[in-house]
Amino acid sequence: MRLAQALFAPRAVALIGASGDPGKNTARPQRYLRKHGYAGRIVPINATRDEVLGERAYRRLADVPGEIDHAFIMVEDVEAALEDCARKGVAVASIYANGFADAGVAGAEREKRLAERARALGVRLLGPNSMGVIDLPGRLALTVNAVLEADALPAGRTSLVSQSGTMLGTLLSRGAARGLGYAKLISVGNEADLGVGELVELLVDDAATRVIALFLETVRDAERLARAARSAHAAGKAIVAYKLGRSALGVELARSHTGALAGSDAALDAFFRDCGIVRVDMLESLIEIPPLLAGRQPRVLGRTPKVAVVTTTGGGAAAVVDRLGLHGIELAGMHDLTMAGNAQGYRATLEQLLASADCDAVLAAVGSSAQFHPEFAVEPIVSARRTEKPLVAFLTPHAEESLQVLAGQGVPAFRTPEACADALAAFFAWRAPREFGDGARTDSLIWQMRVPDLVRAPSPNWFAVLAALGIPVVEQAIVQAPGFVHAVPYPVALKRLGVAHKTEQGGVALDIRDAAELAQHARRMGDERLLVQRMEHGLAEAIVGYRDDPVVGPLVLVGAGGTLAELYQDVAVALAPVSEAEALAMIERVKGLAIVRGYRNLPRGDVAALARAVAALSRLALVPGRPLREAEANPVIVKREGVVAVDALMALKE
Amino acid sequence: MRLAQALFAPRAVALIGASGDPGKNTARPQRYLRKHGYAGRIVPINATRDEVLGERAYRRLADVPGEIDHAFIMVEDVEAALEDCARKGVAVASIYANGFADAGVAGAEREKRLAERARALGVRLLGPNSMGVIDLPGRLALTVNAVLEADALPAGRTSLVSQSGTMLGTLLSRGAARGLGYAKLISVGNEADLGVGELVELLVDDAATRVIALFLETVRDAERLARAARSAHAAGKAIVAYKLGRSALGVELARSHTGALAGSDAALDAFFRDCGIVRVDMLESLIEIPPLLAGRQPRVLGRTPKVAVVTTTGGGAAAVVDRLGLHGIELAGMHDLTMAGNAQGYRATLEQLLASADCDAVLAAVGSSAQFHPEFAVEPIVSARRTEKPLVAFLTPHAEESLQVLAGQGVPAFRTPEACADALAAFFAWRAPREFGDGARTDSLIWQMRVPDLVRAPSPNWFAVLAALGIPVVEQAIVQAPGFVHAVPYPVALKRLGVAHKTEQGGVALDIRDAAELAQHARRMGDERLLVQRMEHGLAEAIVGYRDDPVVGPLVLVGAGGTLAELYQDVAVALAPVSEAEALAMIERVKGLAIVRGYRNLPRGDVAALARAVAALSRLALVPGRPLREAEANPVIVKREGVVAVDALMALKE
Repeated sequence: MRLAQALFAPRAVALIGASGDPGKNTARPQRYLRKHGYAGRIVPINATRDEVLGERAYRRLADVPGEIDHAFIMVEDVEAALEDCARKGVAVASIYANGFADAGVAGAEREKRLAERARALGVRLLGPNSMGVIDLPGRLALTVNAVLEADALPAGRTSLVSQSGTMLGTLLSRGAARGLGYAKLISVGNEADLGVGELVELLVDDAATRVIALFLETVRDAERLARAARSAHAAGKAIVAYKLGRSALGVELARSHTGALAGSDAALDAFFRDCGIVRVDMLESLIEIPPLLAGRQPRVLGRTPKVAVVTTTGGGAAAVVDRLGLHGIELAGMHDLTMAGNAQGYRATLEQLLASADCDAVLAAVGSSAQFHPEFAVEPIVSARRTEKPLVAFLTPHAEESLQVLAGQGVPAFRTPEACADALAAFFAWRAPREFGDGARTDSLIWQMRVPDLVRAPSPNWFAVLAALGIPVVEQAIVQAPGFVHAVPYPVALKRLGVAHKTEQGGVALDIRDAAELAQHARRMGDERLLVQRMEHGLAEAIVGYRDDPVVGPLVLVGAGGTLAELYQDVAVALAPVSEAEALAMIERVKGLAIVRGYRNLPRGDVAALARAVAALSRLALVPGRPLREAEANPVIVKREGVVAVDALMALKE
Repeated sequence: MRLAQALFAPRAVALIGASGDPGKNTARPQRYLRKHGYAGRIVPINATRDEVLGERAYRRLADVPGEIDHAFIMVEDVEAALEDCARKGVAVASIYANGFADAGVAGAEREKRLAERARALGVRLLGPNSMGVIDLPGRLALTVNAVLEADALPAGRTSLVSQSGTMLGTLLSRGAARGLGYAKLISVGNEADLGVGELVELLVDDAATRVIALFLETVRDAERLARAARSAHAAGKAIVAYKLGRSALGVELARSHTGALAGSDAALDAFFRDCGIVRVDMLESLIEIPPLLAGRQPRVLGRTPKVAVVTTTGGGAAAVVDRLGLHGIELAGMHDLTMAGNAQGYRATLEQLLASADCDAVLAAVGSSAQFHPEFAVEPIVSARRTEKPLVAFLTPHAEESLQVLAGQGVPAFRTPEACADALAAFFAWRAPREFGDGARTDSLIWQMRVPDLVRAPSPNWFAVLAALGIPVVEQAIVQAPGFVHAVPYPVALKRLGVAHKTEQGGVALDIRDAAELAQHARRMGDERLLVQRMEHGLAEAIVGYRDDPVVGPLVLVGAGGTLAELYQDVAVALAPVSEAEALAMIERVKGLAIVRGYRNLPRGDVAALARAVAALSRLALVPGRPLREAEANPVIVKREGVVAVDALMALKE
């Protein structure tokens, strides 16, 4: 409790390095705290002055009488300032300076030392490279962010944790322009100590916060954030994230396909989904979605979501509906009304739809009246009796005033058709955090002991690992020159050992009918030892993969097999382990596996067996020590009955 | 010339059905014309009054002294008003009334009669269901659109043709709020007479128009629009379109795969691209892109476009760059500068990048200074020496004033990272209109005569049509029970005749090794007549299709073959005919065909032969009378050398 208070509601703040030149960034916190009416004590610390911007200043923190809860360190010598803070009993220090993990290897080392020292001293750190903390209802503007130049900023019940200091200002500024206010805003900087996860924990306990918004560039503390997300869900608070890096190419040169397919953004997508964190795709959705999430719980519809539309502007409504269609959301009906002289009827239609079982959300699209008659235009929307079902508004013209009226009444309203559709799609994709572990408990635990031994063998047999996990593997044998003798029934396949991308390298021969043919192929391949496998035919090929992601931890992946599927990046990813039911739901999301789910008149494959294999591989997440970095069964042949893995590839952690 | 003048710059307008109640929609044109300073003569026509809103009114158009160039018909009895207009020698009548093609079959009939009568009378029509015409520099506000309630609207050099009357107001209103003005704005309504194509022609000739923006729900006059687009290109004027209906499910139950794959939006996409029309994906891009297009020509880079970024806000720039990456655009470098005290350096960096050969556009991302110091923040951007290379701005905070300064100086500026990336992507995808016909001229024209006979045969042989076009077809024969005799060398495939989706129906047997095996399969299939084909093996399967689209005309399609490709909708579509070079460029756009273009160590397929087949099928567009609705070679086997079509399906027009 002391942490939250020192961070968000300090009774006294020290501004270490406060400048007397009002044009300087380092003068801002003092100016902003005063401007926005901070009620606590402000203590500028300046090495050469006894007065700063008309207020009593001190040369050293040690000279300050009384207690200081929170220090904002704006000097270069952060290390010395930290020692001063510790001596003074300061609970939290926010650090503006950069030159730490943001500045190469030496900076990262410096940051590590700083964090260790702070831990030893018992001082909590925000930053370094943080723009500070804002609490609008509490009138705390302990920040260098220029957005505080604004005379008044609306307070709201959304709190923001941002890895970008400048974007914190952007979101605050854009929200304010249309009446969407914030409660607390925290610029986390490099997260040397206080990270996104812990801040979310604090916000879960914060009575002023109803929705938690995250602007992310990466995730540094996935485990803690995952726990915090579960607490948020339990407390009835929604979390929504906008994350950069969706298009970043996977830089890691992955040895297996799984590495490339479960690229970092897909991994984070799985992470957000499985943690119950709503993910938006557009910047303004992050600002506009909170009223849609506030007070609502994620729910599973079990069918395609349907949105009913009430509109005075056909074209404007169509712009949203068209976009909803791209997200796979259906139209439940379009009601074209004129607002003029018919506010009653308009409201009645809204209420009727909100009460109806035929749609899952109601969209009111308002035309030019929103610009010229704000109160009148949005009155029926604002006054409609609310239900659990969302009622959202899209205003087609430039209509800031109408947007403000709607924001003031807590009605989710959107400035662009794209953000409106993005937010509704994110809302419908929202799921409660997944509970883990059930899949493992129902299963024998023998493999948990066997797998570590198998993978640590001098030259491990990856097929044996699959088999130990409970995944059917093809009947096979290793053959030796010159006889290439084996007992696998013909027809067989012959493969070179330890060669990646065998097919493209001429390292595979299929449909070998007899020993003579086998010998011929074996001689061509030229190796002393080769792998013979029973020739398997099925209805489709799948890839089943596992990856211990450095950011979000163990993941499991299923996709359509073969080169085409790789080209289309057609895979579903989830945090591991998954149960068989969860694996089935993943398989449903893979387009290319439609061919075994009952497509046209194609025969159905054993999707349940595939799901068992996915769940089985995902249990690598439960192996003590998690020795594997990646594991892959590829292809897995999906048959009418059963599946069988015909190739396996794994990589140990370095 | 008379048409453009009567439409946009009438010396006198008659308002037929003008209301004396200023609250009514039908009073608006008179109010707006006065409010916005129309200099011509305004003549209200009202059946019961001699004065309307303080101006001399007439009971009947016939009573009006002097000439009337343009009448705005707001009465229900449009037909009678049209006769009055004709008698009065009115050149253009804009019709507000709806109840025509917008209202079912009877309405469509009424519209047809109205258009025919207008043609006979020599009166040109805008509408019905039109909200009228606006010419901002000319101060003509002949419209019922409430956006004209605004006191002042900025004039610009972008003209808008809109199929949605309300969205015309939306675009005008949103543009005005940030200083992006328009020249002419036309609400085309149902296009009974004057259509989008003809209006674009008028705007190509309009000296006040530099960029033509289209808000489309459909395309009703593809051929004329295509011609107009070519004229616009020749005149150095860009056309940009936003079109609804991207997500509409193809309603037509197409007999072939091509019908479904070349769904109407893909067809329009091909149409826009091949006509040199820029297509934007987001509503605000339509407003914001014109300064990016004005005075520029489409060009082919021949490599991935690269954008250099100069920024004062890392997070804001990253939001755009991330999105650009999703569009396949690369970052040429990120220059993180502070604006403070360094406007000179900022401008120098911009100018250096604009002159550099290492990037194709420069993006300036501006942070909070754009909100609080507009002139200062955008000064270096506005004053940087312009080159051919685009310089665009993205402002992260709410910064309407800065946006207005940029708009005033013609600098493309964007309010959201998504619209910024969308516009840049659309700009880089922009191509000059394609020239047609070369592909045909280089080829023998014999097939032009043979194909009509072949397709009109009592039971046409689609393989023969393919062969006539110059597409290699598999060696084959029709066999008869009970002997099933043929001369095709084994191994062969056996197929049932006239069955769609044969594979899924058990209507195909592959790799038949001898006559005995053949007879066995033939008996199982049970038909009297069956098709035997030489068994072909290749590196990949492709689909090559043709479709005479009811909206945009003949299209050609190429995609990866097989069920998977169908699931992924992985096809490239272009207006037909295409040359071999154009077909090659289409093949490049198909992800799944990467496997024959040189992927990893996979052997290369004969992509040139596939391109020849695509170009050949596309020549169906040149067959006199265009008897075919759809044609498809699927699969086409792509071999190391050559391609071969092993199935063909065609459908005649009804």
